[in-house]
Amino acid sequence: MQPFQGAGYDRAITVFSPDGRLFQVEYAREAVKRGTTSLGVKSVGGIVLVVDKRPTSKLVEPKSIEKIFQIDDHIGAATSGLVADARALVEKARMESQINKITYNEPIRVEGLAKKICDMKQMYTQHGGVRPFGSALIIGGVNESGCKLFETDPSGALIEYKATAIGAGRQIAMDEFEKKYSEDLKLDEAIELALDAVYEATEGKTTVASAEIAVIDGKDRKFRKLSDEEITEHVEELLIRKSKEEEEE
Amino acid sequence: MQPFQGAGYDRAITVFSPDGRLFQVEYAREAVKRGTTSLGVKSVGGIVLVVDKRPTSKLVEPKSIEKIFQIDDHIGAATSGLVADARALVEKARMESQINKITYNEPIRVEGLAKKICDMKQMYTQHGGVRPFGSALIIGGVNESGCKLFETDPSGALIEYKATAIGAGRQIAMDEFEKKYSEDLKLDEAIELALDAVYEATEGKTTVASAEIAVIDGKDRKFRKLSDEEITEHVEELLIRKSKEEEEE
Amino acid sequence: MQPFQGAGYDRAITVFSPDGRLFQVEYAREAVKRGTTSLGVKSVGGIVLVVDKRPTSKLVEPKSIEKIFQIDDHIGAATSGLVADARALVEKARMESQINKITYNEPIRVEGLAKKICDMKQMYTQHGGVRPFGSALIIGGVNESGCKLFETDPSGALIEYKATAIGAGRQIAMDEFEKKYSEDLKLDEAIELALDAVYEATEGKTTVASAEIAVIDGKDRKFRKLSDEEITEHVEELLIRKSKEEEEE
Amino acid sequence: MQPFQGAGYDRAITVFSPDGRLFQVEYAREAVKRGTTSLGVKSVGGIVLVVDKRPTSKLVEPKSIEKIFQIDDHIGAATSGLVADARALVEKARMESQINKITYNEPIRVEGLAKKICDMKQMYTQHGGVRPFGSALIIGGVNESGCKLFETDPSGALIEYKATAIGAGRQIAMDEFEKKYSEDLKLDEAIELALDAVYEATEGKTTVASAEIAVIDGKDRKFRKLSDEEITEHVEELLIRKSKEEEEE
Amino acid sequence: MQPFQGAGYDRAITVFSPDGRLFQVEYAREAVKRGTTSLGVKSVGGIVLVVDKRPTSKLVEPKSIEKIFQIDDHIGAATSGLVADARALVEKARMESQINKITYNEPIRVEGLAKKICDMKQMYTQHGGVRPFGSALIIGGVNESGCKLFETDPSGALIEYKATAIGAGRQIAMDEFEKKYSEDLKLDEAIELALDAVYEATEGKTTVASAEIAVIDGKDRKFRKLSDEEITEHVEELLIRKSKEEEEE
Amino acid sequence: MQPFQGAGYDRAITVFSPDGRLFQVEYAREAVKRGTTSLGVKSVGGIVLVVDKRPTSKLVEPKSIEKIFQIDDHIGAATSGLVADARALVEKARMESQINKITYNEPIRVEGLAKKICDMKQMYTQHGGVRPFGSALIIGGVNESGCKLFETDPSGALIEYKATAIGAGRQIAMDEFEKKYSEDLKLDEAIELALDAVYEATEGKTTVASAEIAVIDGKDRKFRKLSDEEITEHVEELLIRKSKEEEEE
Amino acid sequence: MQPFQGAGYDRAITVFSPDGRLFQVEYAREAVKRGTTSLGVKSVGGIVLVVDKRPTSKLVEPKSIEKIFQIDDHIGAATSGLVADARALVEKARMESQINKITYNEPIRVEGLAKKICDMKQMYTQHGGVRPFGSALIIGGVNESGCKLFETDPSGALIEYKATAIGAGRQIAMDEFEKKYSEDLKLDEAIELALDAVYEATEGKTTVASAEIAVIDGKDRKFRKLSDEEITEHVEELLIRKSKEEEEE
Repeated sequence: MQPFQGAGYDRAITVFSPDGRLFQVEYAREAVKRGTTSLGVKSVGGIVLVVDKRPTSKLVEPKSIEKIFQIDDHIGAATSGLVADARALVEKARMESQINKITYNEPIRVEGLAKKICDMKQMYTQHGGVRPFGSALIIGGVNESGCKLFETDPSGALIEYKATAIGAGRQIAMDEFEKKYSEDLKLDEAIELALDAVYEATEGKTTVASAEIAVIDGKDRKFRKLSDEEITEHVEELLIRKSKEEEEE
Repeated sequence: MQPFQGAGYDRAITVFSPDGRLFQVEYAREAVKRGTTSLGVKSVGGIVLVVDKRPTSKLVEPKSIEKIFQIDDHIGAATSGLVADARALVEKARMESQINKITYNEPIRVEGLAKKICDMKQMYTQHGGVRPFGSALIIGGVNESGCKLFETDPSGALIEYKATAIGAGRQIAMDEFEKKYSEDLKLDEAIELALDAVYEATEGKTTVASAEIAVIDGKDRKFRKLSDEEITEHVEELLIRKSKEEEEE
Repeated sequence: MQPFQGAGYDRAITVFSPDGRLFQVEYAREAVKRGTTSLGVKSVGGIVLVVDKRPTSKLVEPKSIEKIFQIDDHIGAATSGLVADARALVEKARMESQINKITYNEPIRVEGLAKKICDMKQMYTQHGGVRPFGSALIIGGVNESGCKLFETDPSGALIEYKATAIGAGRQIAMDEFEKKYSEDLKLDEAIELALDAVYEATEGKTTVASAEIAVIDGKDRKFRKLSDEEITEHVEELLIRKSKEEEEE
Repeated sequence: MQPFQGAGYDRAITVFSPDGRLFQVEYAREAVKRGTTSLGVKSVGGIVLVVDKRPTSKLVEPKSIEKIFQIDDHIGAATSGLVADARALVEKARMESQINKITYNEPIRVEGLAKKICDMKQMYTQHGGVRPFGSALIIGGVNESGCKLFETDPSGALIEYKATAIGAGRQIAMDEFEKKYSEDLKLDEAIELALDAVYEATEGKTTVASAEIAVIDGKDRKFRKLSDEEITEHVEELLIRKSKEEEEE
Repeated sequence: MQPFQGAGYDRAITVFSPDGRLFQVEYAREAVKRGTTSLGVKSVGGIVLVVDKRPTSKLVEPKSIEKIFQIDDHIGAATSGLVADARALVEKARMESQINKITYNEPIRVEGLAKKICDMKQMYTQHGGVRPFGSALIIGGVNESGCKLFETDPSGALIEYKATAIGAGRQIAMDEFEKKYSEDLKLDEAIELALDAVYEATEGKTTVASAEIAVIDGKDRKFRKLSDEEITEHVEELLIRKSKEEEEE
Repeated sequence: MQPFQGAGYDRAITVFSPDGRLFQVEYAREAVKRGTTSLGVKSVGGIVLVVDKRPTSKLVEPKSIEKIFQIDDHIGAATSGLVADARALVEKARMESQINKITYNEPIRVEGLAKKICDMKQMYTQHGGVRPFGSALIIGGVNESGCKLFETDPSGALIEYKATAIGAGRQIAMDEFEKKYSEDLKLDEAIELALDAVYEATEGKTTVASAEIAVIDGKDRKFRKLSDEEITEHVEELLIRKSKEEEEE
Repeated sequence: MQPFQGAGYDRAITVFSPDGRLFQVEYAREAVKRGTTSLGVKSVGGIVLVVDKRPTSKLVEPKSIEKIFQIDDHIGAATSGLVADARALVEKARMESQINKITYNEPIRVEGLAKKICDMKQMYTQHGGVRPFGSALIIGGVNESGCKLFETDPSGALIEYKATAIGAGRQIAMDEFEKKYSEDLKLDEAIELALDAVYEATEGKTTVASAEIAVIDGKDRKFRKLSDEEITEHVEELLIRKSKEEEEE
């Protein structure tokens, strides 16, 4: 246990601990760490978002476990943490996106949108009577300045990544990215890398049924969820790749 | 007792525990677990909602124990947990449904309605001075994209199911569904399955008088509560089926 | 003492206990249990409301101890628990009734009115800075769909009864109803049954002076308090009946 | 000490104790019990209000210790408890009375006025951030339906009395009333009875200077404070009566 | 220490102690008792207000230590307790006085003004999130009904006095008044009595420099602070009188 | 430690201690005592304000450490305590001053302005959810009635001084004033006295660089900060004077 | 541990400690001390802002770690502490800057802008229900009166510096400035000094990739971030300089 934790400094978002920390924000991050693993990879050809959404029961409609959301034509988000909090943020994002389109008659910039979400998150870390949002978002999109991939956490901090992961498998996925990421990846290679990372992070439990994949193509700037056929193809290639790797070891 | 529970992190909805949990939401789920067993099954022919509403006294008007509510022509909901909370949510749902009809001149989508209810629930988990809703809803309906069956819990999470159950008998009913559910069930077979599950979950105490059954037909998209005669027929078939099963064992 | 009671989960209406209970609502029910015994009986000829209102002092004007209130032409209510809370609810009911008449130009439905009262009660169980209403109401009335008898408790739950009782003598009165109630009672028989139940619940202390009786006739749909003469007649019959019963034992 | 008192259930008006009591209301009643003795007696000829207002110092202007207030032409009130709270309630009463006169062009009914005061008191027992009023009022008046005498306490409960007393000497005065009150008292006899009761309640310390007497005559329906001469006459008669009684003993 | 004091009943103005007391009001009275001694005396010729305002340092401008305030042409006030609270009340009083003049085109009645101040004080004893005013006021004035002298305390209670004192020397001054006050005092004799009382209450430390004296003449109904020359004259007479008295002893 | 301090009476501005004190106001005064030493001296020729603002680092721009503020043409203020609180009060003062000019077309009176500041301070000592201002102001100015010098403290009390000091060196400076102040000082002599007092209060550490001096001339009624040359001259004279004094000792 | 810290005086911004401190402000300063090292240096040729922003992972887009922000054409800010808080303040600053431009048709003064930010910070230290901003800003800019460099801290205090540093390396950087700063530095020399200070403060870990440099030129009054080439050049010179220094030692 950290110094000061549990000494009463950790019950309200309006209280700093003596060493200048906001425990409630840190606890909200724990809620994210308990969530499903979501990943984003930036390539020269576009953005890839991948989520591992193994259902807890076969009675659940797998299509309905939505962890990747379209925000606008050119922007998508992968989430982890409290699902109702994530949905509230996604709705906020869609609204901001529409407001921008109506006000300025042009698509919102990816960074501009990510900042709006972070501003809302920051508000919930400084004013009493609320709790921080218990979810993180990977926001990816393409606009005139190219492909963009952001991660927001419960504090409202905003970081741009080449490749990133949130949720339970974050650490393993990030290690995988550190080893294999290269800036000249093509879109298909980015999907491959993301699936590799999901595979490792879930200890090989990723299946065709549990993978959700979306891309925002760098050229036509359109968010698109991959079809079941496409996912099957990618996952089957992944499994072949992994079984080869294991043989080689 | 779980770590941190009872250490003061569980008195307000605005406080995360050190491991990132919202205890008040979890306690509200306990209120649902104390409630009557409600079930929903999706079939190719429509949605079935069944509730076991054995009255606590014969002085109670059995018709008045309403656990299945019509929300709109094409949508119904089965509830469990605090009854006054459920009624408040049902009223909210009816209002949202009417607003949609007036605003867009078309019936609300089942998922759209379910999300509205979940958004309201989420609000009650993030802002101080209130408590979460102590009730879960199974929301079923039929619209252009087909039959839909959702479950909402006190956190505001939304999951689409093929078949699901809430309340005291949830676990037993879900086990029954896992064993017997198939995606090509016809509407009558779905009623049969739901009654089987209620029977198991209530340890055989379900009677003609205590079963409440509603269907939303996949073709005419109309919510309809079964008449006493229909229920009697279904329950009698159930009892014959069960006594046969027991003989066979 | 129940688990968790007294462990701090019972000081605010916005806090669930770990087992999913709302202690403040349960404590408000205790306030009702400390109140006078009030009863309602539904018959084929109309609704009967009876209250035992023995004054604590002969200096009190017995007429002024009002426990049965007319809500509208066709609706009345018998109360138990905190008297000031009950009066506030009765005023709310009268207002809702008038609003309905003005808005729709027709008398409010009995169930519709009962739900309005329950909605108000539910609000006081979910939002901080208030306490639940410490009173229960038996609401009886007659409208197109026939005679209706509802009971509301501090949680905002609403149950329709054939015959019911609230307050200190509830259990004894309910036992009496379970033994003697029949659905084909005529109005006079219903008064008789209600008086029997009051007599038992008050250990025979009910007198002409302490009984308050109101009926809503099924035909003319009018709330009417019985005159002193009528009450005297009914109570004298009751006492003869009871002395005979005792002789027989 | 009562069970639960002092266990933290008694610090806020929004908290019920486990046995369904509102301790803050009960404590507010203690504030009334610490107050001066005020009495009201109903007679065939009108209402009598009497207060014992012995000043604590001869430097105080006795006329200024106002415990009996005129509310309207036909209504008066005698108070006990926190004097500033009483004054606030009296002002509220005067305002409601004027509003009624302006709105309906007729004098407010005594019971209607008493209910308005009680509604305000009830509000202060159910909403947080305030405390209950620490004063009781005896409200007397005459309107078309005859003479009326009400008592309100800090809970907002309203009881109609033939004769009543509040404040430190309540119990003794009530005993006196129980012994001597009769419904066919004339106005002068009612004053006599009230003074007897004050005399007993104050252990004979009531003097011409400390007695404040008001009547609302049943015929002209006018509130009137007795003049010093009238009070002197009544008190002197009282003292003669009492010295005779003592001789007789 | 009194029963219940320090047991947590004394931290908020919205909490009664079990014996019906408001400790925060009583503590605010202690703030008054720590203040300078202020006095008021009513005579046949007018009202006298006297304050002992010995400065704590000779660097202080003695004229600026204002403890006697003109409220209106015909009303003044002497204060004790928290000086900033007193100033806020005096401003409120001046405003109410002007409002009355503008609204009714006549000077405010002294009692009416005193009640307005007390109403404001009462509000601060019943609603949470504030504290009571920590100051008492002696309000004196002359209107058609003659000379008036009121005292308000932190509870909002209002008492009319012939002569009164507040602050540290209250008890000694009141004893002096009890011994020497007579209702047929002329204005000059009232000043003399007030100075005697201040002299005693301050153990003879009152000097020309520290005495502040104001009168509201009964005839012209004008508030007027005495000039330095007048004060010198009165204080010198006082000192001669006192040295004589001491010689005589 | 004082009685009651630390016993929980000192955590909120809305709580009196049992002996009638407001600890949070007293603690705010401690914040002032930790501040820089600021002084004000009234002379026949005008007001002098002096502050010792030794920077904590030579990297600080000495000009920017503003402790003396111009409020209006004819008014200035020297502050001590929390600098951000002081700045907020100074802005309030400037705004009030402009409002007065616009509303009445004449410069605000010095006392009027000082009272406005004190009213704001008082508000922050009586209403919950805020803390008192942790700064004191010496407000000096000249208007038709002559030179005026006021001191405000966190309680909102207002005292007019001939010469005064706030902050860490207050006591020493006041002793110096008590010894040397005379009412017939000329403006230059007042500057000299103020510098002497600063010198003593800072144990001789005052230098040309650390002294900030402002005057409001009694004739032209203009606030003016002395130039570096003027300050140098005054401080050099001070140092010569002091070294002589030391030689003499 | 300091006296009073941890004794409950440090949980709310509205509570002074007995020694007049605001612990929550001090804890917010700790949040700044945990942040990256940011520096500002004023030269005759303009303002230099430098930040050490070593990314925690090579997957982070280094460009996106923005610690230096353009506020207006002529103003920039370097931040340290909670990044989301800093972003909120920067947005506030940009808005204030635009409002000034629109309202007065001229660029905002640097000091005026810095005060606006500080006013907002002060508000968050005096009103309950919020926490102070956990970030400090170095605000630099050029306007008619020349080059200006301010530092704001969580208390809302504002200090103008010749050279300053915030964040983890503040003390080492300030020591470096104290040793080497001179008021006649040219712009290039100021960059050199700032980089020297960053180098020392980060124990030599500053690289081309981690240094972010911005200047506001004194002549054209334009904020400009240095290009990668310029930074490379400056950092390479720094490393040569430092390796020489080490050889010399």
